Amino acid sequence: MKKEYLGEWLLPGGPHSDIILSSRIRLARNIKTFPFLTRSTREIQEKIREMVREVLTENGLLKKGSFFTNEELSPLKLQFLLERHLIPLDFLGSRMHRGLYVSKDETLSILINEEDHLRLQVLTSGLNFFPAYEKIEKLDNRLAEKLPYAFSSELGFLTACPTNVGTGMRASFFIHLPGLVITKEIEKILRSLLAMGLVARGIYGEGSETKGNLFQISNQITLGLTETEILEKVTKVGEEILNYERRAQEFLLKNLRLSVEDKIYRAYATLKNARLLTSEETINLLLMVRFGIVAELIKDVDLKTINTLLILTKPANLQIYYNKEMSPKERDEKRAELVRSFLKDRGNGR
Amino acid sequence: MKKEYLGEWLLPGGPHSDIILSSRIRLARNIKTFPFLTRSTREIQEKIREMVREVLTENGLLKKGSFFTNEELSPLKLQFLLERHLIPLDFLGSRMHRGLYVSKDETLSILINEEDHLRLQVLTSGLNFFPAYEKIEKLDNRLAEKLPYAFSSELGFLTACPTNVGTGMRASFFIHLPGLVITKEIEKILRSLLAMGLVARGIYGEGSETKGNLFQISNQITLGLTETEILEKVTKVGEEILNYERRAQEFLLKNLRLSVEDKIYRAYATLKNARLLTSEETINLLLMVRFGIVAELIKDVDLKTINTLLILTKPANLQIYYNKEMSPKERDEKRAELVRSFLKDRGNGR
Repeated sequence: MKKEYLGEWLLPGGPHSDIILSSRIRLARNIKTFPFLTRSTREIQEKIREMVREVLTENGLLKKGSFFTNEELSPLKLQFLLERHLIPLDFLGSRMHRGLYVSKDETLSILINEEDHLRLQVLTSGLNFFPAYEKIEKLDNRLAEKLPYAFSSELGFLTACPTNVGTGMRASFFIHLPGLVITKEIEKILRSLLAMGLVARGIYGEGSETKGNLFQISNQITLGLTETEILEKVTKVGEEILNYERRAQEFLLKNLRLSVEDKIYRAYATLKNARLLTSEETINLLLMVRFGIVAELIKDVDLKTINTLLILTKPANLQIYYNKEMSPKERDEKRAELVRSFLKDRGNGR
Repeated sequence: MKKEYLGEWLLPGGPHSDIILSSRIRLARNIKTFPFLTRSTREIQEKIREMVREVLTENGLLKKGSFFTNEELSPLKLQFLLERHLIPLDFLGSRMHRGLYVSKDETLSILINEEDHLRLQVLTSGLNFFPAYEKIEKLDNRLAEKLPYAFSSELGFLTACPTNVGTGMRASFFIHLPGLVITKEIEKILRSLLAMGLVARGIYGEGSETKGNLFQISNQITLGLTETEILEKVTKVGEEILNYERRAQEFLLKNLRLSVEDKIYRAYATLKNARLLTSEETINLLLMVRFGIVAELIKDVDLKTINTLLILTKPANLQIYYNKEMSPKERDEKRAELVRSFLKDRGNGR
């Protein structure tokens, strides 16, 4: 992982990536020769970690990425990984022996001893679950050759938490919904998700808050449906929300154009001129500019730049980018500097 | 008065006009053959107005400016004159027969039947009372030749309100104090003024609120001092506050530079990019940019442009500029358009 490198999954390119930033699939797996982590000792945790590390080495995967134990990761580095969506919120601050594998392009990662012995994750740009599933299935099959998975012919894959039993699969996507948020239709959409067995979460997964107008939407049910059925369902819901969002944007640009333009041009101007920017304000301004690009009001900056800034301006990424530990005040200064340097020599947004 | 014309007194040029926008002297005068206005009939008011109009005509002054009766001024035009500091707040909405003379360059005006029969006013750029006094004294002497002033050898000029008896003179200046406001020293300064017989008011005179960081400071005492003594005193106080302000600005630029730069560059960027601007926000942003110019942080726009915008963006001036009555929402749009057109093709403030 390079400090200035950004996972390929965050670079626009996938289908509908103007609104759906990325899709993610994760599989929960356990090794049947070991007890679930809730009943494991630290010795067992270490054994699991070493076993997986060995398999990854044998498979040649270690050459294509990096392996870390949580003991060797500083709090700053953990925060950095969280901000890049490579680990979930509850990976931080655990006393368990944990491990993490991340591929060089940051699209594939394996968590060891998080809630389950293994969590495989694939990230991809846009709404694009089927290619992602091919990739994760291939990885899963390779690991299954060496690791005896806990599997019941009746229930499917067995997991620490019953909500994951069956496929052990969670499919989610990050979606940017400024139109639905501004028109206040978002509440209705989020309520209807629940009825379809899906749920909206904050961008750092379970337990994290929803911020600005960026949402993570994922399936809740893992049992009773095949992997393909789950992915088809989540894809369909993604496409539906996408259409609602496009209609809300059209409505806004037709009926409240001036007020939308005002918000967007102010946000862009502020990003290009501020000398101090907090993390929170930066996210909101970047997302407003992102909307401006999608709405074709801003044409001299691209989604790649904004997606990149969304990650690099986060506290730990910023410090690692500048290779310097910084106080919040110093960060606000450097954050504004970074944003200006990425947006400089651009016009006034018309 | 032209809609796009701005009184010469508001164009920088006078001493210290970076901080003290303008100086104003007004003289209260009454005609001894008529009762004070508190006891006047509408017939008497009309007689006074016609008498003054005749004298102005005889003197050739009417050729050098315009004369209006309050009956012929629409509420919009009255508001326009108030915003340009040519009439005070309480000139609006009166049932008295009143009159107004304004010279073409908007530096000299005469109010008829406001609180006193006559109020002469001279405005000038910067802190520059003595040339202004020469001008108003000359006008006063010319009028005194034809109009029998109410004068007591013991008390001086007699006025409707005892606070104006004596010289009948009020000397005031508009001062922009961002440094003292940001450093919160302003309260101390305003308190000390009172002890010296001066008072700070809102920019539209008595009864108007102080807005942003622009103040009008004037003498309270008119009796027991000569005109020269009053002007010397007010000038001295002006110079003192000026020095406090310069020191506060130096302090800010030395110790809180980043935060000041942040505020200034954001304000400038917002003015150049907003599509909707309320009157209140515009004043605050313009005054912040004005500070940026004085502090030499913004170099591609001049004080004249900002001073002009401070007037032209006010509700009535805006409507008269565009020659169109507008709702508040339409005004916000046109205001933003006007500001952008004055500031366009300028750089990023560096």
